[in-house]
Amino acid sequence: MEAKRPSESRTTMTDTVLPSETNPLNNLFGGELLARMDRAASITARRHSRRIAVTASVNHVAFNRSIPLGSVVTVEASISRAFRTSMEIVIDVWTEDRFSGERTKANEAIYTFVAVDDIGIPTEVPPVLPETELEQLRFEAALRRKQLSLVLAGKMNPHDATELKALFQED
Amino acid sequence: MEAKRPSESRTTMTDTVLPSETNPLNNLFGGELLARMDRAASITARRHSRRIAVTASVNHVAFNRSIPLGSVVTVEASISRAFRTSMEIVIDVWTEDRFSGERTKANEAIYTFVAVDDIGIPTEVPPVLPETELEQLRFEAALRRKQLSLVLAGKMNPHDATELKALFQED
Amino acid sequence: MEAKRPSESRTTMTDTVLPSETNPLNNLFGGELLARMDRAASITARRHSRRIAVTASVNHVAFNRSIPLGSVVTVEASISRAFRTSMEIVIDVWTEDRFSGERTKANEAIYTFVAVDDIGIPTEVPPVLPETELEQLRFEAALRRKQLSLVLAGKMNPHDATELKALFQED
Amino acid sequence: MEAKRPSESRTTMTDTVLPSETNPLNNLFGGELLARMDRAASITARRHSRRIAVTASVNHVAFNRSIPLGSVVTVEASISRAFRTSMEIVIDVWTEDRFSGERTKANEAIYTFVAVDDIGIPTEVPPVLPETELEQLRFEAALRRKQLSLVLAGKMNPHDATELKALFQED
Amino acid sequence: MEAKRPSESRTTMTDTVLPSETNPLNNLFGGELLARMDRAASITARRHSRRIAVTASVNHVAFNRSIPLGSVVTVEASISRAFRTSMEIVIDVWTEDRFSGERTKANEAIYTFVAVDDIGIPTEVPPVLPETELEQLRFEAALRRKQLSLVLAGKMNPHDATELKALFQED
Amino acid sequence: MEAKRPSESRTTMTDTVLPSETNPLNNLFGGELLARMDRAASITARRHSRRIAVTASVNHVAFNRSIPLGSVVTVEASISRAFRTSMEIVIDVWTEDRFSGERTKANEAIYTFVAVDDIGIPTEVPPVLPETELEQLRFEAALRRKQLSLVLAGKMNPHDATELKALFQED
Repeated sequence: MEAKRPSESRTTMTDTVLPSETNPLNNLFGGELLARMDRAASITARRHSRRIAVTASVNHVAFNRSIPLGSVVTVEASISRAFRTSMEIVIDVWTEDRFSGERTKANEAIYTFVAVDDIGIPTEVPPVLPETELEQLRFEAALRRKQLSLVLAGKMNPHDATELKALFQED
Repeated sequence: MEAKRPSESRTTMTDTVLPSETNPLNNLFGGELLARMDRAASITARRHSRRIAVTASVNHVAFNRSIPLGSVVTVEASISRAFRTSMEIVIDVWTEDRFSGERTKANEAIYTFVAVDDIGIPTEVPPVLPETELEQLRFEAALRRKQLSLVLAGKMNPHDATELKALFQED
Repeated sequence: MEAKRPSESRTTMTDTVLPSETNPLNNLFGGELLARMDRAASITARRHSRRIAVTASVNHVAFNRSIPLGSVVTVEASISRAFRTSMEIVIDVWTEDRFSGERTKANEAIYTFVAVDDIGIPTEVPPVLPETELEQLRFEAALRRKQLSLVLAGKMNPHDATELKALFQED
Repeated sequence: MEAKRPSESRTTMTDTVLPSETNPLNNLFGGELLARMDRAASITARRHSRRIAVTASVNHVAFNRSIPLGSVVTVEASISRAFRTSMEIVIDVWTEDRFSGERTKANEAIYTFVAVDDIGIPTEVPPVLPETELEQLRFEAALRRKQLSLVLAGKMNPHDATELKALFQED
Repeated sequence: MEAKRPSESRTTMTDTVLPSETNPLNNLFGGELLARMDRAASITARRHSRRIAVTASVNHVAFNRSIPLGSVVTVEASISRAFRTSMEIVIDVWTEDRFSGERTKANEAIYTFVAVDDIGIPTEVPPVLPETELEQLRFEAALRRKQLSLVLAGKMNPHDATELKALFQED
Repeated sequence: MEAKRPSESRTTMTDTVLPSETNPLNNLFGGELLARMDRAASITARRHSRRIAVTASVNHVAFNRSIPLGSVVTVEASISRAFRTSMEIVIDVWTEDRFSGERTKANEAIYTFVAVDDIGIPTEVPPVLPETELEQLRFEAALRRKQLSLVLAGKMNPHDATELKALFQED
């Protein structure tokens, strides 16, 4: 299969924060943001694979910044790397200051999707061809994350996770 | 502050899967499940702390099992351990077979919440007193996860994460 | 068919009150609570019968206590008695005080469901085996309510409703 | 206060049945219909009283006829009688055959609302002046229902409920 | 096909403005009103044609009056004229003053629908027989609007749009 | 006020079509698309003006192409021209073929917004500086549409609408 560039499947979902999505402090619920990111990421996975894409996993997500009611929120989902039938999607979330218009990074998350056919059987997806420096960095980091995921799921021996092992090893 | 048992704040949210929550294969969207788990977990965090609780992070979540339209889904959120102002909540998700009534574990997830006062300042929460064997295991694992989280956020030197380091060290 | 205990099909649905569910006084709409109770009760009916369960009727429901925006509401649905193809479900609703954590009974309601097969034909359901004292009381009261329902629908002569008649008869 | 006619506050709410409101048989959930009837009835109560109106109770409701996905449903709410601060609202529900256009009565329900001021204190409402024969019949039946409600709530001795007692008394 | 009167398909949809439908000034979003009007108008088109009716176009709509949260809004959709397979529907929107009960015209809009069969092929609809003076005026205006629509779509030469041309011609 | 380019406020909202947004033919309701376009356009108006922006009017919109359930829909809103306190926003809608990934233009619409301060008073907005050829064409067409709008509202004599008059005048 021919490799595709991340820009070919990048998905932008800009919308505001509605009252039904906020907690008692009038900020966006973490769970609602997780759902929006899933919707944007699944479109990117579908655009890259031209298949139905189902969520396989979500990496650790930190919510460092609250997003108040009425904010404009931009969720941008880009594919970082494809494995045989799975795709890692990186999602960047920005909010905008109402007066200055300045965009602030609010969140970053990593979801993994699997491409399936119409009855749910995993199918192959095209490789990813990173272009920009950021795309290249994320492409490489995706491999380390894949290893961590396999180790945590008990499907890879920690000693074989060479990329990962280096992080925790004494020199 | 007096320690509280997990059973005092456990939250059960049973509901069905509606058409507006499903993907083209007629299974529950991963993002919708993440949002439901967040709602259940935030109630547990609020019950334990008797404060407003905001989502601080979500650990790695794997979606191994699809949940079809019309399923009965039970989301059960239990506190595993409290740190000074934060609480780790473990969420177990079951679905039920329509004919046999048998419950199947569909997912497990870990969310961290911070207790805040009415203007959003973090406030102290009671410690957790685990009772059952499972609660004890989860209480201990919570410390390792806390360390991993601090390492990944660059707030702890991997060499100081004693619990975690052991996992990757040659003997 | 083998009798089943109410505890085998009891359903707990805990959730918060969202802005889109409140009236101009910022309290939960009566109609929204009726819809939540219906969803919880239909799951109990489905769990007891292992069939599709459709709402047949709702008994008189009084709303004595307003439930403010942001409250944690627990809806618990238990089967009280089964007739040939129908099931009476009793629903208890509690809210929690944010600071003390104390639970207050907010409502009680009684719904009747009919079990149907995939094309909507009523089918038999297992009998109910009450265990606790409360379950026993509700089991007996269910018969009186069944009679009242038949009388009001013109399907039973008031003089034959022996249980009911006693209530209004001079001694 | 000057009496008002039912026609002055009658409320018609016509809408279709959406996929998110249907059960596994593709019929409208009983709970959704209860919520729609509550919304229509609360508008009638508000129009009659020109106050905020909160749901006080719902009478026994039977669901005799299933309402399939895509149906046009007309909910019509009319005030039948006002007591000091409360109003009884009768709701008629019709569906329409797609081909013949014929309207079929699908349901009838009775809700009671209380008029309140901006801090929730019950306030007086105008009396109802029935005009048509149906309005007159419903006006009279409302008194019997009021008595039944008081008896069931333990606020009226069954022997004093003269209207009601007649129904169950031997001659 | 036999002509039908506008009163036979008129649709009234009365409902309140919910928090999830309002902008930062707590007024109904223009887009939400457009969606409500579409739902009411599509029911009128379906009632007139007894067919599935799909939105073909919306005429210029002006939002001159803001509709605050909690308002009672009445959307009334009436057919003004039918062409071969299409129907022009005029929608009138009123809001009510909470205290005086006085109705104020908030909006007026014109939607065009096409009747289709079960696979989406346009099918013929009955002509419209206007009765009241307003219905007669709208019946005539519908022809001018049809011409404007054809001119703007490049499907009619402006010089042939006799009704329309008069408006812009020097005498 | 300093002029701003359309690219500075352009808004992209990509999302899928959910079951709750479709008609009996399983295509997106016209009204839902109108609501989505309004949300995207209001964000563009807010970004250009850095003010609250309320919908003032919607131009004629034609729905030439049905958008099936599950489609990926991209709504892109760009400012075409600003008048003193109002902004004309052009919205382009595309859908994507699931297999080829090819984008097809599904709709085009024009909304006008007014910038207001926190109590709803119209306030001045920056002029628009068109850059591309398409932006330049839309900038010019916006003036003709403004004149048509004023003529239709009876606020401008057709004979003074010089841009517009030319369209209907014999040579």
